[in-house]
Amino acid sequence: MERTLTRDVGKNVGKEILVQGWLHKKRLLGGLNFINIRDRGGLIQVAVENKDEVEKLRGLQIGTVLEVTGTVFEESRAPGGSEIRDPKIKVLVPVTDELPIEIDKPLSHKPENLDTLFEYRPIGLRNLQETAIFKVRAAIQRALREYFYSQEFTEINTPKLLAAATEGGAEVFKIDYFGKEATLAQSPQFYKQMLVGPFERVFEIAPVYRAEPSATTRHMTEYTSIDAELGFIDIEGLKDVLSGLLNFVNDYIWEHNEVELKTLNATKPVLTEKVPSMSMAEIHEKYSKQTGENSVGEKDLRPDEERWACDYAKKNLGSEAVFVTDWPASEMKFYHKAQAGNPELADRIDLLFRGVEIATGSMRENIYEVVKKQLVEKAGGDPEDPGFKPLLMAMQAGMPPHGGFGMGSERLTEKFLNLANVKEATLFPRDINRLSP
Amino acid sequence: MERTLTRDVGKNVGKEILVQGWLHKKRLLGGLNFINIRDRGGLIQVAVENKDEVEKLRGLQIGTVLEVTGTVFEESRAPGGSEIRDPKIKVLVPVTDELPIEIDKPLSHKPENLDTLFEYRPIGLRNLQETAIFKVRAAIQRALREYFYSQEFTEINTPKLLAAATEGGAEVFKIDYFGKEATLAQSPQFYKQMLVGPFERVFEIAPVYRAEPSATTRHMTEYTSIDAELGFIDIEGLKDVLSGLLNFVNDYIWEHNEVELKTLNATKPVLTEKVPSMSMAEIHEKYSKQTGENSVGEKDLRPDEERWACDYAKKNLGSEAVFVTDWPASEMKFYHKAQAGNPELADRIDLLFRGVEIATGSMRENIYEVVKKQLVEKAGGDPEDPGFKPLLMAMQAGMPPHGGFGMGSERLTEKFLNLANVKEATLFPRDINRLSP
Repeated sequence: MERTLTRDVGKNVGKEILVQGWLHKKRLLGGLNFINIRDRGGLIQVAVENKDEVEKLRGLQIGTVLEVTGTVFEESRAPGGSEIRDPKIKVLVPVTDELPIEIDKPLSHKPENLDTLFEYRPIGLRNLQETAIFKVRAAIQRALREYFYSQEFTEINTPKLLAAATEGGAEVFKIDYFGKEATLAQSPQFYKQMLVGPFERVFEIAPVYRAEPSATTRHMTEYTSIDAELGFIDIEGLKDVLSGLLNFVNDYIWEHNEVELKTLNATKPVLTEKVPSMSMAEIHEKYSKQTGENSVGEKDLRPDEERWACDYAKKNLGSEAVFVTDWPASEMKFYHKAQAGNPELADRIDLLFRGVEIATGSMRENIYEVVKKQLVEKAGGDPEDPGFKPLLMAMQAGMPPHGGFGMGSERLTEKFLNLANVKEATLFPRDINRLSP
Repeated sequence: MERTLTRDVGKNVGKEILVQGWLHKKRLLGGLNFINIRDRGGLIQVAVENKDEVEKLRGLQIGTVLEVTGTVFEESRAPGGSEIRDPKIKVLVPVTDELPIEIDKPLSHKPENLDTLFEYRPIGLRNLQETAIFKVRAAIQRALREYFYSQEFTEINTPKLLAAATEGGAEVFKIDYFGKEATLAQSPQFYKQMLVGPFERVFEIAPVYRAEPSATTRHMTEYTSIDAELGFIDIEGLKDVLSGLLNFVNDYIWEHNEVELKTLNATKPVLTEKVPSMSMAEIHEKYSKQTGENSVGEKDLRPDEERWACDYAKKNLGSEAVFVTDWPASEMKFYHKAQAGNPELADRIDLLFRGVEIATGSMRENIYEVVKKQLVEKAGGDPEDPGFKPLLMAMQAGMPPHGGFGMGSERLTEKFLNLANVKEATLFPRDINRLSP
C-alpha cells in the first residue's frame, strides 16, 4: 500500500490507509490508547484498542518510527478532525530511552532556557512550533528569491575565503590557509558591487562571519546575509526595491504559511506600498520632544529611538516599517556616496521594522578617483591591498550609479514572527560561547 | 524619458528611445562611428554620424557609462536586427584608461591563460560569453530549488563554523575562534541527516570548504555544495529523486536559457526519465574486456573508467548520465548503510554525467547502536566528540530509513556547458594558489 501523508488522511474517510512517521505522543486511557504520529505533513491521531497492538507499544518512547495501517474515521476531537482506528502497527525503529526533553508541547524560549533549547536542537526541532519557525524562514528565503528573480536580479555565489579583511579589521575571523593567513568574509560588499558591471542587478543569500565578541540577542558569529546590488538606480529606486521586497515577502508567507504563522501566534504586519521615510534629524527631534530625552545632533539612532520611530510610523504613517534617511556623511564607509546636493549627508537608508533595523542600504561612490581617495582618507586603506584592488579595478573600468542593501535572514524571520532573539530563528546558532551542536 | 533595455529596442522601430549602459565596442569607419552599448539585456548598436556626437566619444574607452537617446531603425547587419540612429549621447561616467583586457571577443580559457582570466575577473566577466556562463549557473540553481520545492523539501541553513572536523581531518581549515580552535564545514552531512527528524526532506545550497592542497581542474578550496536528504526512502527512491532533478534542471535551462546556452555552444544532454544503473563490477568487467586494461576487483572507478562508462551509457543505454551502484562496503563511511541482503556491498550510488562523477548518494545507517559502532570501528571517532554527538543524539531519538546526496554547483554547471575546469564556472575561484580577486 502507498504511504498517505498525515495531512491527507482526512480525505480518506472510510478507507484503509498506511501512514509512516514518528510516535509524537502516547496516552493510555484505561484500555484505550491514543497515539499521535508525526510526519512532514503534521500529526494524525491513532486509536489503539486491540490488545496485541497495545502490547507492541509497551516500552516504546516518543521518537519511535512507526508504520500504521488502519481505517480513517471522522473524529471532531482529534487534531485535523479525523483519526485512524483499528490499526495494525509495525515498529520500524524502536526508541527505548526516554528523550531528554519533551517535544509534544511548546519548548521554553525564556532567556534562561535558551542554552537548553540549543543544546537539544537535534531533538527539540521536532516540536511543531520549532518546525513552524523554520518552515516560515524557508518560505521567507523562497519569497526573497522569487522577488529578486521577478526584478531581473542574477543570483551570485561570491567567495567567503578572502586574502584580507575588507571592513573593520577587528571582528574578522582568521584562517590558516596553507601556512598563510586568510580571513572569512564579513559581507559580499565589494563582490556584489563589482558584479553590477557584468549583471547590473545581483543578489546573494549566503553565510557571512563576524568575530562578534559578545553574545547578544542581536548578534551571532555566523548568519545568513541577504545581499542585493543594482546599477542605474538612485536612492528612491532603492527604496522602491526594498519596499517591494518587504511587501512581497509579507504577502507570500501569509498566503502560503498561514498555518505555521498562526501556530506561532504571529500577526500580519501592516505595510504601505512604499515604506514611508523619516530623516534622522526628524526622528531625533520628535523623539526628544516626546520623551524628554535629548538625542538631537547625535550621529546614530539609539536602540530606544528605533523602537520609538517604529511606534511613531505605525500610529502616524500606517506602516510597521520605516526608512531612516539623511545619515551624517561623517559616518559614511569609504564606498558610500554623499548626497549630490548636500555633501554633509550620506545617500543612505536604514530600514526599521518592528522596532529594529533590519536592513542597511546606500548609494555607492562610483567614480574611481573619488572611491580611491575615500579609501585612503576615510578607511586608511591601501589601493594595492588585494582586498580593495579588485573593487578599484571594476571602478576604473566604468561603474554606473549603483546602490544596494544587506539584511539578515534570521533577523527578518525573528521580526515576522515576533521572536525575541535572532538565535530562535537559527537552526544551530553560533556565538562566542557556542560552536555545537 | 524612461529607460528602454537593449533587448526591447527592436520593439520600438520608428520611435525615440533612451538606453543606458556600457560602451562595449567602438568602430570608426570614415566619418561614421558604430558603437555597441551593453546593458543587462544584451547589446544594441548605435550609428553616430553627427560630428559633435562623434567628438564626445573621442578618447573614451570601453567601459564608459553612457546614456543614449535616438531613433530606432531596422538594420539587418546589426546585432538583434535593429540599431539606434541620430543619437544624442550623454557620458555618465567616462573611462579614459584603456582596459587591461579586451572584452568584446571571447576570452581564452586555455589552461595557460586561466590565471589571466581570473586575475582580471572584475572586468572580464563583462564579456558576454562569461556573463552567459553565470546566467546559466544561476538558472541551474534556480531550477534545483524549484525541483526541491516541488518535492516538498524544506530549505535549511546549517552552520559552517564547527567545533570539530567531521570527515577527513586532513583537508579541513582551522580558524582562530576567540583563542580556541574551530573548523570550517566540509559538508553539511550530519546536519542534513539530523534535520530529517523535524522535516523529513531537506536541502541546502551553500558554500563548503576543503583544504585541498593541489590545484586541479576538479578541486577548489571553496565551492557551492548542493545537499539533499530524505527520510522514508530506499535506494531506488533516491535514484528517482536524482533522476528527476537532473531532468528537471536540463529541461529548465534549455527552456529558459537557450540564448546563453547557444552562445556557449552547449548541447542539450540526452537523458532518460530514470537514469540507468550499472554496478561497479559490471563496469570493471566490461571496461577491462573492451580496453585491455584490468580493473576487475578494484574498489573505485578509475577516471578513465568514469569516461568509459559515460560513453557506454550514451551509446547503449541512451543516456549521458549513469548511476554506479554496488560499491564495496569496505570503502563505506561510518554513516553509510550496507545493503540489507548483501553486507559486502554499500547502499551507495554515484551519478556520472558526461565523463565524471557529479553526485554521490547513499542510504545512511539509521540504527543508533550500529552508527555508534561504525563510528568507533570505521572512523576511530569518539561518540562524545561535539562533532559526532549531535548526530548520535538524533539517531537515539529515532531516525527512519533515510538517504541523500551531495553535488557541486560548479561541476554541474561545467558539465552542462562542456567546460574543461570547475573554475571556469566559478566567479572568483579559490585554490591553494588563489585567494584574490
